[in-house]
Amino acid sequence: MSLELRNRLFNELNSLTLIDPHTHINPHAPASTTLADILGYHYYTELAHSAGMPKSEIEQQDLDPRELVGRLFENLEPLANTIQYSWFVEIAQAFFGLEGDELKSGDWSTLYETALAKMAADDWADQVLAQSKLEAVFLTNSFDDDLEGFDSDVYIPCLRTDDLVFQLGEESVRERLANTTGIEVHDVATLDEAIGKLFEKFISRGVRACAISLPPDFSPKKITPGRANTAIDEVCTKGAGANVQQHRAAAQFIFWKIAEYCKECRLPFDLMIGVNRNVYTDGVHQGRDLYDSRVSLIQYRELFNAFPEVKFPISVLASVTNQELASYAWIFPNVLTNGHWWYSNTPTFIEHDASARLEAVPATKQIGYYSDMYKLEFALPKFNMYKRILAKILSERYVIDRNWTEERALALGRQVLRGNVDATFPDRKPPKIDSAIYNDPALSDKSSQQEPEAGGSSIF
Amino acid sequence: MSLELRNRLFNELNSLTLIDPHTHINPHAPASTTLADILGYHYYTELAHSAGMPKSEIEQQDLDPRELVGRLFENLEPLANTIQYSWFVEIAQAFFGLEGDELKSGDWSTLYETALAKMAADDWADQVLAQSKLEAVFLTNSFDDDLEGFDSDVYIPCLRTDDLVFQLGEESVRERLANTTGIEVHDVATLDEAIGKLFEKFISRGVRACAISLPPDFSPKKITPGRANTAIDEVCTKGAGANVQQHRAAAQFIFWKIAEYCKECRLPFDLMIGVNRNVYTDGVHQGRDLYDSRVSLIQYRELFNAFPEVKFPISVLASVTNQELASYAWIFPNVLTNGHWWYSNTPTFIEHDASARLEAVPATKQIGYYSDMYKLEFALPKFNMYKRILAKILSERYVIDRNWTEERALALGRQVLRGNVDATFPDRKPPKIDSAIYNDPALSDKSSQQEPEAGGSSIF
Amino acid sequence: MSLELRNRLFNELNSLTLIDPHTHINPHAPASTTLADILGYHYYTELAHSAGMPKSEIEQQDLDPRELVGRLFENLEPLANTIQYSWFVEIAQAFFGLEGDELKSGDWSTLYETALAKMAADDWADQVLAQSKLEAVFLTNSFDDDLEGFDSDVYIPCLRTDDLVFQLGEESVRERLANTTGIEVHDVATLDEAIGKLFEKFISRGVRACAISLPPDFSPKKITPGRANTAIDEVCTKGAGANVQQHRAAAQFIFWKIAEYCKECRLPFDLMIGVNRNVYTDGVHQGRDLYDSRVSLIQYRELFNAFPEVKFPISVLASVTNQELASYAWIFPNVLTNGHWWYSNTPTFIEHDASARLEAVPATKQIGYYSDMYKLEFALPKFNMYKRILAKILSERYVIDRNWTEERALALGRQVLRGNVDATFPDRKPPKIDSAIYNDPALSDKSSQQEPEAGGSSIF
Repeated sequence: MSLELRNRLFNELNSLTLIDPHTHINPHAPASTTLADILGYHYYTELAHSAGMPKSEIEQQDLDPRELVGRLFENLEPLANTIQYSWFVEIAQAFFGLEGDELKSGDWSTLYETALAKMAADDWADQVLAQSKLEAVFLTNSFDDDLEGFDSDVYIPCLRTDDLVFQLGEESVRERLANTTGIEVHDVATLDEAIGKLFEKFISRGVRACAISLPPDFSPKKITPGRANTAIDEVCTKGAGANVQQHRAAAQFIFWKIAEYCKECRLPFDLMIGVNRNVYTDGVHQGRDLYDSRVSLIQYRELFNAFPEVKFPISVLASVTNQELASYAWIFPNVLTNGHWWYSNTPTFIEHDASARLEAVPATKQIGYYSDMYKLEFALPKFNMYKRILAKILSERYVIDRNWTEERALALGRQVLRGNVDATFPDRKPPKIDSAIYNDPALSDKSSQQEPEAGGSSIF
Repeated sequence: MSLELRNRLFNELNSLTLIDPHTHINPHAPASTTLADILGYHYYTELAHSAGMPKSEIEQQDLDPRELVGRLFENLEPLANTIQYSWFVEIAQAFFGLEGDELKSGDWSTLYETALAKMAADDWADQVLAQSKLEAVFLTNSFDDDLEGFDSDVYIPCLRTDDLVFQLGEESVRERLANTTGIEVHDVATLDEAIGKLFEKFISRGVRACAISLPPDFSPKKITPGRANTAIDEVCTKGAGANVQQHRAAAQFIFWKIAEYCKECRLPFDLMIGVNRNVYTDGVHQGRDLYDSRVSLIQYRELFNAFPEVKFPISVLASVTNQELASYAWIFPNVLTNGHWWYSNTPTFIEHDASARLEAVPATKQIGYYSDMYKLEFALPKFNMYKRILAKILSERYVIDRNWTEERALALGRQVLRGNVDATFPDRKPPKIDSAIYNDPALSDKSSQQEPEAGGSSIF
Repeated sequence: MSLELRNRLFNELNSLTLIDPHTHINPHAPASTTLADILGYHYYTELAHSAGMPKSEIEQQDLDPRELVGRLFENLEPLANTIQYSWFVEIAQAFFGLEGDELKSGDWSTLYETALAKMAADDWADQVLAQSKLEAVFLTNSFDDDLEGFDSDVYIPCLRTDDLVFQLGEESVRERLANTTGIEVHDVATLDEAIGKLFEKFISRGVRACAISLPPDFSPKKITPGRANTAIDEVCTKGAGANVQQHRAAAQFIFWKIAEYCKECRLPFDLMIGVNRNVYTDGVHQGRDLYDSRVSLIQYRELFNAFPEVKFPISVLASVTNQELASYAWIFPNVLTNGHWWYSNTPTFIEHDASARLEAVPATKQIGYYSDMYKLEFALPKFNMYKRILAKILSERYVIDRNWTEERALALGRQVLRGNVDATFPDRKPPKIDSAIYNDPALSDKSSQQEPEAGGSSIF
């Protein structure tokens, strides 16, 4: 009974068209060109390496993609238990006609060729979007991305600010900043001006969110301009040699400044809390980061109180922080729960964490899922994984335990999958004018609904 | 099969008459007088505020209860997914004849009137107690409550000590203490005497527990009287201006002193560990507290070792502390697990935490649940939530996984729901003498059973 | 359906012959001689004490085993809910013919006699091994155990190093070290030499692992020899009176030295992370240790990077650390997950923790379970508990949720139960030569497979 119910709910949820609110898609090359783009995803290279494959076989210079795929295939067996491997199988089934779910190493060649042929289609990215029922995906843009040459209704700009906050001491970062804004940053005033220019540029291109990932020991704090000048000066002149207090004060000041611009520009500020970079120094590309789960949202207390107008969709890296996230989102109007990030993006943790959120956080404040993908093909299996778990939770905890109708449970599912993405990250670009609809009042009403008043959207 | 089993066990557990071992009931106004007492519970005001309702609409001065209820109803939809909302629906169904489980905003007026009429009955509180199968509830008394004018067999005094331990620096607290005890506290000796008087008063009124909530960074420690005199002097003379070391030492000394009186008076000392007060400074009333889940029971090591004679029923705010609680209760004879507190009082956490306790802590050392309610109507849905989860755990983990008979599983359920409340917090008042039973030896045996010897009850 | 599936999978898993990779078996007295050896296990004495049995009744000097068992029986009722109690019942059923699963206190005498008679058999230990389908068990050897007089193919030496690392300041430890190695340790050079001798001795007797348990605040670090000389000198001359920095530096140096020897000798180094010793000072024997769950594997970052050639099978004491363990094993080739330790060795935690590992860690890097037992009779119920949970996870999360065939799910189960123990702790002793097979190339191939090259086994 419960399995049939789960399947029914999954099928309904699976008919939704979605927007993926956090990815690392390159809008100029959104889909894969060979299977190496799929199997080269760090989830596979790092797991294969962890299971014994030497890094040198993975990251060999000028390696032919075909050769890389062949080598990785030989090393997939020890990963076949993982959920990450199941994403690959589901991609192969959905897009490249794989039948059954077991891949023998001998099979890879046919699969490689099939994929190559499919991916060669001019509209491959659009095919993938359509088959995945994806209407749009959020990008992760460096501050100096030029944001031109792609459809920003489908590939939605998002300003990623990690390097501004934590790497201003690197000359290359300041140079990129100068090149983009025309401003040489060396103190509070020039920094403020430069960041203002970045926001201007991103706003003009339809940015819908600011985002940053944060280490477990980061604690936002308002820094006085005088103190900040000292810190920025030392960080800019001494770089990595500046002492840790100066680095911390500079990062806190810049972070706070970005939050102020988010307030002014009415942009949500995605916080991704808890990652330590480069923990495994000899790891493969993107397979070096880990974490210290001893982090608390109490560290963000001053921030949440200071910016009631800014929405903070928050992801936490460790499942042990999830209860705090649910509790802070239950209490603070400006805190939202956002997806299941990285090391918590596996079924056991998703099920536990999503259940806890659904039970205690207002339905309007939960962004169910994002894929975090680098290539479009991954949205389908990742969202399917989430939708299966969501269907399980809705079946067991709502329809069965709480006697909800299936329709009501589905409405909740739709809201966290899609409705809250629209409400949290509204499109505030001036609507494109199409003469045919120019005088249609219903449509102009609709566009104004998407234009919330300063200081609050419909869910605040 | 499993669902029918769960229902069978639930129905049996649901026939028990209970004592609620921790509430915030006002014995002079235990039940609600309008629906505003129900919907004004902080669980609804804080969630409605979190979902976007301005605080000014909730806390407007001299607001008519009817108007408040109307406003809150307009803001309930975003909360309809939460378990807290389901408590409200269950109250409306059980006490006010609501049919079905969905409340449209238009419906509230009828419900309001129905509730108003029912609540107007002279014996409304007793009706609620009877329908909820509640025999008695523990109170949360300020040290200067007068404890008169109510039936202390039904409304059982419990001495709450937060302000003594953490607010002695406030002049108003010392004044209340002086008014109650006749003693102006300014050093160790006067403090000891004043606390002694409080215990005397509470004992004479049938107090059955002492209780306190504690911040995550509190660590009990025995302080020498000399050190304590310095600390108390500074805290009393400088108030909030005293430095943090003095505040800490004073709090540690007073906490320890209260534990000593608990030992002397053979009173359990309920510890509610982990809350940070006033984190969201602009939150609604009682909707400002959150926590830092980085707390460990190792902080209580010295206390548990120093007071083997005192029972410490312990609640933890965060589910990540639950395993420590289960382990400490498994090892320390004087540590008991106590209910599912606040942010951990939602089904996913209750199920995980209660399962872990049931498997590893002696059955006699687990107090299953308390409601923490402010108005009597909430015991019914909250205990029902717990009993449904308990029935699920007993079904799946005992009857199915471990082949227990249903009767044996129910005996375990009854013990944690009721038996352990009686055993942990025995009524030690002299029995009231009824001439008809005066010479019945069976009954006088029974009362003496409830009078454990100094230093230990039946489970120690 | 799901229950039948679970049972089918359990029965298959239950037909495997296993090696138990971590126990505290005394190879000279591996099995019990009376029921007091079973009920005297700290899991029962500490729980009975926690539930109210005075320590003096348990640890009375020269207490007759029969009398102890009688007393403990009188105190088992409050523990009958625990999983630990269920191990005892399963032992009584499997080995001593108990029928049903409830033990009345009156029954114990018959059970005692039956057990006594069975245990008197000369081959009792071998009977228990055979009935438990155990091929071999790892020991926990003190560095000065003589390792003679037992079959080291069945009772496999494992060098436990806690006292070397943390107790070198105790004269008795240095004396034992001097007696065993002939070296008086007083500085880096003599320490190095002494540890080298220990490894030599253990290698010659077929040791297959080094092991240590570590407190939550320990953080491995490479210490310079100069700094280490100061620390070792102070620790050796002042003992407990040496200051905490010296103790810490000495422990870090010795720990690192042992890791170097593990590298040189190609031995896995089992880390058991998170225990605080002697927290409940008046507890019964072995019932005094608890923990602070605020520990992170980030503390081991330097170690994991410095020793890529050493396999670290890791156990964590608290379930809240399990996600970090799974993540570190997912990223670091030299980190393996190892069993479910002590306070996390109960069904709710095992299910949550094992599920999370199975989904995200390469199948080759997970050692499913060890018993941690002191007497052989405990392997059967403990492994059965794990196998039941494993069968549940494989049924629900693989066969049902991911459409795996049962055979494929069983292959995963077999790998974590047995295959990975063989691969992680290969027998590197020279094979015993049997003239009949001397020239069989297939067999000599097999033995050479078990002899990995320096720097890597088959799973690296």
